[in-house]
Amino acid sequence: MAKRSYPLAKVYGLLEPGPVVLVTTARNGSANIMTMSWHTMMEFEPPLIGCVISGRNASFDTLCATKECTINIPTREMAKVVVDIGNCSGRTVDKFAKFGLTPVEASQVQAPLIAECYASLECRVADARLVNHYNFFILDVLQAWADTAVKNPQTLHHRGNGVFAVAGETVKLRSRMK
Amino acid sequence: MAKRSYPLAKVYGLLEPGPVVLVTTARNGSANIMTMSWHTMMEFEPPLIGCVISGRNASFDTLCATKECTINIPTREMAKVVVDIGNCSGRTVDKFAKFGLTPVEASQVQAPLIAECYASLECRVADARLVNHYNFFILDVLQAWADTAVKNPQTLHHRGNGVFAVAGETVKLRSRMK
Repeated sequence: MAKRSYPLAKVYGLLEPGPVVLVTTARNGSANIMTMSWHTMMEFEPPLIGCVISGRNASFDTLCATKECTINIPTREMAKVVVDIGNCSGRTVDKFAKFGLTPVEASQVQAPLIAECYASLECRVADARLVNHYNFFILDVLQAWADTAVKNPQTLHHRGNGVFAVAGETVKLRSRMK
Repeated sequence: MAKRSYPLAKVYGLLEPGPVVLVTTARNGSANIMTMSWHTMMEFEPPLIGCVISGRNASFDTLCATKECTINIPTREMAKVVVDIGNCSGRTVDKFAKFGLTPVEASQVQAPLIAECYASLECRVADARLVNHYNFFILDVLQAWADTAVKNPQTLHHRGNGVFAVAGETVKLRSRMK
């Protein structure tokens, strides 16, 4: 995907619709990927994202240690990979290699971007006070990238147990909301 | 909609895909509605939901005072109403009357359910410690209702500025994830 730098003020429009995302982390030169659906925007600009990452994930430990990750938004062609990434652990699998994904160096964090995703966000942990109780991280988006040629991305929206709704038709209405 | 009691263990499948929702609150016999897209599941069962409600909304004050709300999930027929509800304030408008929506008594909270939505959740504030910093409420789902005849609900997913992706085609994959 031909991603370019994307305005931080527009990041909410990428995540607010609730797509399943791929989160990367990295430590000691070794990168990992996890699948995540439990996230929400928390502020427009600079963008803040809240997300839940289970303590059972290897990514949890790396995120706690490094305070950095990237959030990458896949589309329907990647549906099988998205599920398969969620079905194995970075403790035993090099997921970039196993799933043929291309790591791209980020500008502000050690964790790599995923080339195959149409949008990627470089994030740093801004507030960890709810990690102990809820595994809830609040992330600052430091830099965003998006392929703006992708106009109506067929994002994946998890309904549970591997069933996804694909983003379909677009409805445009006059809004005074952001 | 013919809603029936719905298992709390399945609630995550309703909200995890990221639909725009309608939140009701009530105080002194007067009910209000707001449109919300910034929410995430935080626990499977009992279900916990995190959400951001701006302090500019009348609903913020009522939720702080009563600790109760309902979350209702609309589908595409309601798109215009969903946007219009976000474009006016409960301080000056009776939104149930103005938009012809039907309030239904909830079983465990004072705030009413919205009959026209295919699923409704009765919620109580479980943790308000991030309200001061982020307007972030953590809600316990006490009771869920859904019309299970609605198999692939055409939920609305806000991309910003009144543009919504409608949930379209369904993809089913084998998953070991919930």
